[in-house]
Amino acid sequence: VDGVDFSCKSFISSVWEFCKEDVDRVTFSLKVGLAVLIVSLLILCRDPYRVFGTNIIWSILTVAIMFEYTVGATFNRGFNRALGSLLAGVMAIAIAQIALSTGQVAEPIIIGFSIFIVGTVTSFMKLWPSLVPYEYGFRVMLFTYCLIIVSGYRMGSPFRTAMDRLYSIAIGGIVAVSVNLLIFPIWAGEQLHKELVNNFASVADALEECVRKYLQDDGSEQPEFTKTVMDDFPDEPAYRKCRSTLNSAAKFETLANSAKWEPPHGRFNHFFYPWSEYVKVGAVLRYCAYEVMAIHGVLHSEIQAPYNLRITFQKEIQEASSTAAELVRYLGQNIDNMQWSLKSCLLKRVHVSTERLQRAIDMHSYLLTSDNSSIPQTKLDHAMSSTLADLDPKLLEQNLDPPNQLPGSTVTLQVESYHETMRKQSRRQYSWPSREVDAFEDDRGFNKDSIPKMQALESTTNLSLATFTSLLIEFVARLNHLVEAVDELSNMAKFKHCNA
Amino acid sequence: VDGVDFSCKSFISSVWEFCKEDVDRVTFSLKVGLAVLIVSLLILCRDPYRVFGTNIIWSILTVAIMFEYTVGATFNRGFNRALGSLLAGVMAIAIAQIALSTGQVAEPIIIGFSIFIVGTVTSFMKLWPSLVPYEYGFRVMLFTYCLIIVSGYRMGSPFRTAMDRLYSIAIGGIVAVSVNLLIFPIWAGEQLHKELVNNFASVADALEECVRKYLQDDGSEQPEFTKTVMDDFPDEPAYRKCRSTLNSAAKFETLANSAKWEPPHGRFNHFFYPWSEYVKVGAVLRYCAYEVMAIHGVLHSEIQAPYNLRITFQKEIQEASSTAAELVRYLGQNIDNMQWSLKSCLLKRVHVSTERLQRAIDMHSYLLTSDNSSIPQTKLDHAMSSTLADLDPKLLEQNLDPPNQLPGSTVTLQVESYHETMRKQSRRQYSWPSREVDAFEDDRGFNKDSIPKMQALESTTNLSLATFTSLLIEFVARLNHLVEAVDELSNMAKFKHCNA
Repeated sequence: VDGVDFSCKSFISSVWEFCKEDVDRVTFSLKVGLAVLIVSLLILCRDPYRVFGTNIIWSILTVAIMFEYTVGATFNRGFNRALGSLLAGVMAIAIAQIALSTGQVAEPIIIGFSIFIVGTVTSFMKLWPSLVPYEYGFRVMLFTYCLIIVSGYRMGSPFRTAMDRLYSIAIGGIVAVSVNLLIFPIWAGEQLHKELVNNFASVADALEECVRKYLQDDGSEQPEFTKTVMDDFPDEPAYRKCRSTLNSAAKFETLANSAKWEPPHGRFNHFFYPWSEYVKVGAVLRYCAYEVMAIHGVLHSEIQAPYNLRITFQKEIQEASSTAAELVRYLGQNIDNMQWSLKSCLLKRVHVSTERLQRAIDMHSYLLTSDNSSIPQTKLDHAMSSTLADLDPKLLEQNLDPPNQLPGSTVTLQVESYHETMRKQSRRQYSWPSREVDAFEDDRGFNKDSIPKMQALESTTNLSLATFTSLLIEFVARLNHLVEAVDELSNMAKFKHCNA
Repeated sequence: VDGVDFSCKSFISSVWEFCKEDVDRVTFSLKVGLAVLIVSLLILCRDPYRVFGTNIIWSILTVAIMFEYTVGATFNRGFNRALGSLLAGVMAIAIAQIALSTGQVAEPIIIGFSIFIVGTVTSFMKLWPSLVPYEYGFRVMLFTYCLIIVSGYRMGSPFRTAMDRLYSIAIGGIVAVSVNLLIFPIWAGEQLHKELVNNFASVADALEECVRKYLQDDGSEQPEFTKTVMDDFPDEPAYRKCRSTLNSAAKFETLANSAKWEPPHGRFNHFFYPWSEYVKVGAVLRYCAYEVMAIHGVLHSEIQAPYNLRITFQKEIQEASSTAAELVRYLGQNIDNMQWSLKSCLLKRVHVSTERLQRAIDMHSYLLTSDNSSIPQTKLDHAMSSTLADLDPKLLEQNLDPPNQLPGSTVTLQVESYHETMRKQSRRQYSWPSREVDAFEDDRGFNKDSIPKMQALESTTNLSLATFTSLLIEFVARLNHLVEAVDELSNMAKFKHCNA
């Protein structure tokens, strides 16, 4: 009993969470209930029933099929249903009149043949790429045509049947649209707006999360690649959100399509609001998010730069990524507040920090190639222990000259751990061509060829850091397009311009 | 008249192309026509009409709503419709009996209230994430419940109304399923199989296309970034196909869900065929395709390695990418033929060519850092002019010693073009922080700081090549997971194992 009680409680609490997450869900459900209730009352009450008759049950069907989550989508479906029904009605009346005039024998043959043709043509048309959004309209057209012409054949007057059907559909449509529009309307435009703002935030979060993990990870705790992990990454919520951003193209399209059907409302108070511009900004943002995906790919790649090398550039990487994330967040907030103030200092900081990262990589590029024979060990040690805290180039040049200002013990420790990491890395390295390289590995001890190969791999692992940083730099480079896209959106959507 | 004639011709030819592309589309359309014709005959012919009555029009509705493209999807929809209708029928009868027993005044109130509750609950449930696939079933449940209880209220016997409705729905369902299953069935499983095989081919094509373009591009013809180009890349058909691969997750899920409803058929001739394994292989393939997206990102990135540097590693990059693409294609063919023969020589070639690329990068890593002060110019020139055609390490070491075996004129030409490219690159470089760096740029001529900055940028452009190659190497590293996934699929789906 306790178990049942517990699972019941957890069920209720999860339902409660689900509602609290988005109250619109409850609103929507209650609205559907209300709409079907209103239509049903037309039959349940005696007076309207006398007026409308049993045909009114078609209104119920219409409401149930037409009622969509957002106002725009309901309008869109309503348009599909109305146009589909109307076309079907007109066609059915025309064909029925022709069939009637041909006499009793030919009539059912003509009707049957026309049903076959309509079924085939509408099904074919809805597969046509540019007509796919109107799939529902074609479905409605097919069954309305069949219903009118068939019941018209049995009941005698196709015109009357068609009119009865059409006005009961119209009543259902009017009820669905009114309830959806007048009672706590859920606007597709509002959803699109929120979705875009959220996407900005999730890209920024994912970038920061990737960088943080990259700098934390010491290479030992990397979990084995398993199918469950692969598409999931349970410990990286921001990444998962960002990945869903990449798949949001279709959602954006759908919402923008629905939003175009909506009248001006709330904050979006002028006609021809540029909803399609939202889709474009979303696309540019996705273009940036691809770079985050690539960065995440390096984070989980088989070939990893040693931890100590990563930590060397910690400060620069962190600064570049956090200013970039800040800019992305700032853009998102601007859209959210429907204002546009390009803070030039923010942009400048992004560029300066990225340049600093580039310069740091340049200054220490010998670390990436790890041609150990030519680089003195002291230099390497120095670079490893200093975190390049203050990379003003002049300060740095001074720093480079006296290399022995650190206590020897620390240096030894650092070097040891560096080499240990390298060994770990190279072991991991060997594991990836797991099937075929065994032959090579076996004679590693005997053959002299194994040494250059080892070096090759070591250098490649170091270059992995270069990959990480250059992807980060590329992300920043792409931000310019994002700024431009948001700028264009702000102009077209007439955001409030402030100069900050 | 000629214009109309021409557009009519082009319309017909495009429809013809559309049909030829996939004959199943025509088959599907004709089948829908046939199914509605069969149901309509039940009303048009006198004898069945006498048996079934006007209720049979519900069968038409059922066919029009239930008929889906594939057998599995039709089964799935049919199941939704059947279960939804059945539950609704049972509920409606129960509630109607209760309402009847409460007397004339309370009856419509109870009925109205129950309609409201059913409308609210079904709408809420269909928003629940795990119930979203059954959205259609909830819709059916809602309107069937309303129709039965309302018309039952007006016509007196809810049980009889429910039964009439249910058996006419059953007739429609049986007709839809039989036509779909017995006449040229279109199997979701077959579609899923084809889709996966196509995805393998498109990833391989996209990889080769990216690499080809990277090695062709001399940096001058790069088109300006415009919004139209950004999400389109009209001159890269393989890339666009590959990108659609990334968005195919939902399609795979849908097809696999449908395929599970299908009986064994054709080549998939045993029960419990592992369709979900196809989804997993597709996910691993997508994991590899992300790497191709990243490679494509480098190809179109703002920061580009100079052309001459790229061409230096041409042979190694081309070999690594083409063997990797070959392996991917081979895996796809294996799935297509439903056999599994892991050609170890192919795998070995992939690993060897990738190792060769790594070694080449390692040997010439000084090119990537371009610390010009420490590297003698001759060395650079030599590396630029030689395409590293034969990178046997021993041969190469011999090569490095005599640097002046080339005619002087060629060297000068090469160096000149190299420097020109660098200038182009750096100009492009400067263009990206377009708004804010102007201040820096203005005093470029006067300030000494501009020189280290310039160097920093130059080295970053060179590192872009390192990024490209390490992404390529990472792609190869991920192929191992793909081989494993295909191996598992081959075991679970009982592919024919051959040893080659």
